[in-house]
Amino acid sequence: MGDPVTIPPRSGTAFTLDRGQTLTVIDPEGRQVSDLLAFARDDLREVISSGRTLDYANRIYLTTGDQLYSNRSNVMLDIIEDRVGRHDFLLTPCSKDTFRIIYGDTDPHRGCFGNLAAALEPYGVGPDAIPVAFNCFMNVPVDGATGSFTVEPPLSKAGDFITFRAEMDLVMALTACSALQSNGGSFKPIQYRID
Amino acid sequence: MGDPVTIPPRSGTAFTLDRGQTLTVIDPEGRQVSDLLAFARDDLREVISSGRTLDYANRIYLTTGDQLYSNRSNVMLDIIEDRVGRHDFLLTPCSKDTFRIIYGDTDPHRGCFGNLAAALEPYGVGPDAIPVAFNCFMNVPVDGATGSFTVEPPLSKAGDFITFRAEMDLVMALTACSALQSNGGSFKPIQYRID
Repeated sequence: MGDPVTIPPRSGTAFTLDRGQTLTVIDPEGRQVSDLLAFARDDLREVISSGRTLDYANRIYLTTGDQLYSNRSNVMLDIIEDRVGRHDFLLTPCSKDTFRIIYGDTDPHRGCFGNLAAALEPYGVGPDAIPVAFNCFMNVPVDGATGSFTVEPPLSKAGDFITFRAEMDLVMALTACSALQSNGGSFKPIQYRID
Repeated sequence: MGDPVTIPPRSGTAFTLDRGQTLTVIDPEGRQVSDLLAFARDDLREVISSGRTLDYANRIYLTTGDQLYSNRSNVMLDIIEDRVGRHDFLLTPCSKDTFRIIYGDTDPHRGCFGNLAAALEPYGVGPDAIPVAFNCFMNVPVDGATGSFTVEPPLSKAGDFITFRAEMDLVMALTACSALQSNGGSFKPIQYRID
């Protein structure tokens, strides 16, 4: 089993994941979101797609047994174990604009979006290519009658995790999310492990 | 008032829309979906974003008064009139793969995705750049407790419409949707008007 790598609070990283390897995203302290992106290493224009994934799952909340699809309708990742059962796949990574528009910040943090863009730049992925992320542990309950949703603290407790198996060679990016509201009011680290 | 243009069943088109112009998407026979895409004419990498839009609206069902944002968090379109009140912004355009995976078709139609890709090619937009579309009149109720959703017949009646105002110069693409399930079991035309 690989050693866990720590992503410090409000930061992000990128790395490669080979077909057949597993990636475990761990919430070491609890109530912390991690935005996850995946790109096909053979052709970076093939990218994780919320729309395709939700369409094939017929569910907005994904968990063990579900598959994350690319924009070309290929399976990128299988969710093989999930100790939390609530993740979000509706919202884009938080950004300077998120903090400006939603929080009214005048000097906003670059957010997950900025962290993902910086981490992915060496791999040749530009900021405009960042799609809706699979937001591990993010808790966005939707009111089916009105369509309204709220961003609530994650249901993850210290040590909870979700494990994915790669179905193709991938470039991955992962954050410790930077939005106060998404993380129960405090910024904490995320860990990941590749096996 | 401009003359309406008809999009035949199971087809699509693309056109430009100038800042300040309005686009009215009309369902002439009722119960027919139209997938809508928008790209910034100045830089086609700026594209309509479900994730940004939903994040700022705090709602998955959008209607009059809501704004459709780009991946750069700029407003592309305002919804200024809406006679239906139920549209989808979760699912990607139907495609060969949709029909293969969901319907089990062995010789599938190219779907909205293929129609959008063909219509956008002359504008320099490649198929991998097609994101989650704003699916006018598409009725996808979500069960908030389980996250499950179903694709139900549109609530639109003959002559119902939705009108958008452009907040920037745009390349637009629009379809008469090709998925049987999304359109109450039959393929019908869509009309649009630019004013």
